[in-house]
Amino acid sequence: MSFKQIIEESSQKKESNIILALDLPPTELDVLLHKTLMILDAVEGQICAVKFNRHLILPLGLFAGVQKLLKRAKEYDLPTIMDCKINDVGSTNKIIAEHYYNSGFDALTANPFVGWKEGMQPVFETAKQYDRGVILLVFMSHEGSSEGYGQEVFVEKTQLPTSQYEIFAQKALEWGADGVVVGATYPERIRRVHSILGKSVPIYSPGVGVQGGKIEDAVRGGARYLIVGRAITMTEDPLQAAKSLKVTAQKAISVL
Amino acid sequence: MSFKQIIEESSQKKESNIILALDLPPTELDVLLHKTLMILDAVEGQICAVKFNRHLILPLGLFAGVQKLLKRAKEYDLPTIMDCKINDVGSTNKIIAEHYYNSGFDALTANPFVGWKEGMQPVFETAKQYDRGVILLVFMSHEGSSEGYGQEVFVEKTQLPTSQYEIFAQKALEWGADGVVVGATYPERIRRVHSILGKSVPIYSPGVGVQGGKIEDAVRGGARYLIVGRAITMTEDPLQAAKSLKVTAQKAISVL
Repeated sequence: MSFKQIIEESSQKKESNIILALDLPPTELDVLLHKTLMILDAVEGQICAVKFNRHLILPLGLFAGVQKLLKRAKEYDLPTIMDCKINDVGSTNKIIAEHYYNSGFDALTANPFVGWKEGMQPVFETAKQYDRGVILLVFMSHEGSSEGYGQEVFVEKTQLPTSQYEIFAQKALEWGADGVVVGATYPERIRRVHSILGKSVPIYSPGVGVQGGKIEDAVRGGARYLIVGRAITMTEDPLQAAKSLKVTAQKAISVL
Repeated sequence: MSFKQIIEESSQKKESNIILALDLPPTELDVLLHKTLMILDAVEGQICAVKFNRHLILPLGLFAGVQKLLKRAKEYDLPTIMDCKINDVGSTNKIIAEHYYNSGFDALTANPFVGWKEGMQPVFETAKQYDRGVILLVFMSHEGSSEGYGQEVFVEKTQLPTSQYEIFAQKALEWGADGVVVGATYPERIRRVHSILGKSVPIYSPGVGVQGGKIEDAVRGGARYLIVGRAITMTEDPLQAAKSLKVTAQKAISVL
């Protein structure tokens, strides 16, 4: 089963399209681990997957504290995504991917800007070898995203200016990505990317809540999964927050 | 003293422009740590700085095994660079940078493609706060680098197509980067970047040796530092290899 299928099955089973971003701010190590586990325990029934970032990897250690979190996620039958945004040369990308897959992650994120040859090719090959997923960045959720992801690029073949993120969406199709990331803060970009990808590559949308993205707009544009961090983890009642976000997303999907 | 000054002083003192990339392939943890320390001990007199990548961070742990390596580098008075190629949203970038600076690194690498607002701005602010360095990727050493870094971008202000890497070089100037990375495999790009940056932002060139880059070409183009990994670490005699590379670089610089 491909990662695309694994997360879709989880989403059906959990009746949720919410991916929990476990990106807690720095604090003492035992507090960080304890808090992260508590949040995961509280919301596991409301989400379809968990996403990790360097917030956890760097202080806790990939083969140390992070193992406890990955084990817990597996116990809840939740797929895990490492949001490492791989963007190095191929030989290094391969080693990064191997470490994350070996540690137990089901998928990782990568930046198509590095190109295919000696760049992304080894990432996709490693994913295939391990039978895991690759999700490509297509348009990020922050303001400066327009500077790179939003720029107009001259395409040699067509001799026409084309938006960078449209070029990336095309690459996601060509390279066989399991998903793409488009910020919920840019719903019109989600729509455009969805028109390129159709149903073959699902869209993952971060930036809901604290960053200003609206679930309804993202879903209407074509987002399949909503990545939510602080709007769950930094609230008084993470369970209630996750429940409410899940229902909002389900409602938005039901009227599509 | 800025990182730009710190590494230049180290380079003068050690009479070397070679930065050792301690990117060893995966193996058992104690072997990896032992081998890395052995190579560092052997070549410390021939190099001006040390660069780390995820080859060491992910298996050894930033606040675990990596601390032993950073301590050893400090004992040799060698500046340390974390080649993390930061390319996330600003709030995450800040946390990544804080972790690496807190762990002891003197500088880190980052990808200007994410843009300034809510992207690179927090990285440069964190660097300033910690009094450490930021080195920006301008053109990478691998084949696929041309796909993104080499593409032609439509610039709104001038209404002209401009090479992506030239745009990045301009940003390095504007943002006050301590250095830029341009692959030794593309000496003509080094020359072009050098013509934009002059002496204000030094060029770091990886890709010498195994990847096919030539020290003489890179130096003639305007590279100030040569980043060398496998051409030192994977040889029978790392000291001899480092010595020979150092002399080649010094000779190339002396005839400029």
